[in-house]
Formats: sequence, C-alpha cells, structure tokens
Amino acid sequence: MEPNQKRRASIGARRSPETEAAVKSAARGLLAEKGYAGFSIEEVARRAGAGKPTIYRWWPNKADLFIAIYGADKDAAIPLPDEGSLRSDLLRYTTDLWRFWREDTAGRVFRGLIAEAQTSEAALAALRFKFMPERLASPRTMFVRAAERGEFAAGEIDDRLELWVGFNWFHVLTDQLAADEPSLARKIDLLCR
Amino acid sequence: MEPNQKRRASIGARRSPETEAAVKSAARGLLAEKGYAGFSIEEVARRAGAGKPTIYRWWPNKADLFIAIYGADKDAAIPLPDEGSLRSDLLRYTTDLWRFWREDTAGRVFRGLIAEAQTSEAALAALRFKFMPERLASPRTMFVRAAERGEFAAGEIDDRLELWVGFNWFHVLTDQLAADEPSLARKIDLLCR
Repeated sequence: MEPNQKRRASIGARRSPETEAAVKSAARGLLAEKGYAGFSIEEVARRAGAGKPTIYRWWPNKADLFIAIYGADKDAAIPLPDEGSLRSDLLRYTTDLWRFWREDTAGRVFRGLIAEAQTSEAALAALRFKFMPERLASPRTMFVRAAERGEFAAGEIDDRLELWVGFNWFHVLTDQLAADEPSLARKIDLLCR
Repeated sequence: MEPNQKRRASIGARRSPETEAAVKSAARGLLAEKGYAGFSIEEVARRAGAGKPTIYRWWPNKADLFIAIYGADKDAAIPLPDEGSLRSDLLRYTTDLWRFWREDTAGRVFRGLIAEAQTSEAALAALRFKFMPERLASPRTMFVRAAERGEFAAGEIDDRLELWVGFNWFHVLTDQLAADEPSLARKIDLLCR
C-alpha cells in the first residue's frame, strides 16, 4: 500500500452515499428480522459488505446507527400538525406516533433502545444527548406555538413536553399502543390544561 | 424414599419461613452484586442452598422474585403521606421514591425490570399485571383522597395517576433522579391542576 493511499483510508473523511445507503438498508433488514437486541454493527457490516471501521467512524455504536434510521423513518412518517390548538395537535401527533411505534420497522423496536440504555452507558448517553434533543425538537414546536397563542405560560413549555414524553414512554414500554386507546384524549386534555 | 415422603415433597404446599428468608437474603445479595441483568433464580438457589423447584413454585420467574423483594423494601422505605393536598403528598412521595431508586438495593435496579419487559413476555406480564396493580395501590390513595377533597373530578384519578407514573419512569430510565431536580415541583404542580 502506498503512503498516500493509507492516509486517505485512515482519514476517510467523506461518506460514500452508496455505502451509506447499503448500510442503512442492511440495518433496516436486520432490525426487522432480529429486533433491537439482535442488532449489531458487526452483522450490519457483514450484510452491507462494508468495513466495520467505516461504520464505526460514522456511527460509534449501534444506538447511534439505530437513532439515524429511526429519525429518518419518523420524519418521513409523521407530519407535524398545526391545527390551532395544542389539544388537536397532540391528539393527531400522538396517534401518529403510536401507529409508527406499532408498524414501522425502527419504530417497533424503539423500546429496545430504552432497554439497552439501562445497562449500557453509551446507549444511555446516545438516548439522552442525541436521541432526545434531535427527536423532541419537532414536537416541541407544538408546545411553543401553544404558548405563543396564550394557551399556557412560556415557562411551562418544557415541563409539559416532558410529561407528554413520559406518558408516551409508559405506553410503549408496557405495550399499550392501541389505536382506540380510550384514555388517550382524556390524558391529552390533562396535559393541555 | 417412602411414598408419603415423596408426596409431601411434590405437593410442597407450605412455605418454610426459613427457606423464604434465605432465598430473599440471597436474592438481595445477588442484586447488589450483579444488578438486575445478572440476577437469576439459578444463582439465588445456589447461594441460598435451596432447591430450584421450590423457588420456581413460589416465584415462577426472576421478575416475580424481584417484585416480591422490591415491594417489601419499598413499603418499608416510603410512608404514604397525607398532608391535606395532592401537591404536598406528591412532592413528598416522589422525593422519597427517587431516593429509594437511587439508594435501595432493589430500587437501584428497578429499571432493569422495565428493560427485561422489552424482550421477555413473562417479564412484561409480571410488570403489567403484578407489579403495576400491587405497587400503584398505595400511591393511588393520594389521588383518591384529593378527588374526595374536591381537588379534581373522581373520573380523573387514574389518568392523573398514570401521567405521574410516566413522569417517574421517564426520570428513572434516563437516570435523572437528582434530589434537587429543579423541575420536580413544577411538574407536580402541572399534574395537580
């Protein structure tokens, strides 16, 4: 190997779109087949025909790779509603989110990321400092708009958002995501008061 | 072995208090040492010098045994407050609960039960149909009393209780249980409105 070849390989700055697409496609297939617990960078690399160092350079651990796929799928699946009241927006968004968690490949195994975060410090850090800020930016807009409309004080935006997140986590972690969950509207009413 | 001895052994109806105490003590030691993921009926049996079939007869899986220990510890650690308002009661109870989750042997690894429920149907069933009803009966009393005092409608008791549970789960699962959590009082205010 010539010296400049070696240098290119070890800097390896740019992502090849083809490799990235192959990795994501392999990752989705593996998630669909084995769930979050059976998901590993090693097996994704094997299926995508990509080098492990390449994947690790882009996504330092399986939680990071999962979060990238989950984020892309969720953005594509759930439009941000703007119906003029927090109650309407949350009812629409929460219904869509629960459907995403029931039906989408990455959505169905999201609970596995929370589970992994209970034993892996790296997964906990990815959940708290990457997943949460990235994923909550969009739904937070609904609460910001509501505060701007005067539905509640601006100082309550993040507290209300967090209570809504906790409500959703409780439902996904206890596998209670029925489309006709009768208490959904009542809980959203409480969160909007 | 004589026939009637054999029959006694296989019916094995009564629990021996000594064996039960030995099993629970071994279980607490193992939880302290290895956490929830390293907890197993097999190793508890070995440490307690008890037969595995005996333990399985009393607690069909590790989640059930954990729930028994957690419940006893929690009842001993957290008195149910009755201070005349849901806000005061919840502030006291939640502060105690978070301390229990930070410091108690079983409390510290509770998040492991939620994690296990994401891959084990038996653990999910134990969480939903044993842990939740048993553990929520006591805090639910605070919400019932508040409704009786007219703080909110009786029809909202279980919805408010569940939002409070989701709030707590979110904090334990993201390892945010600081004693001086600044948003705790604000969130409890929202849950009491």
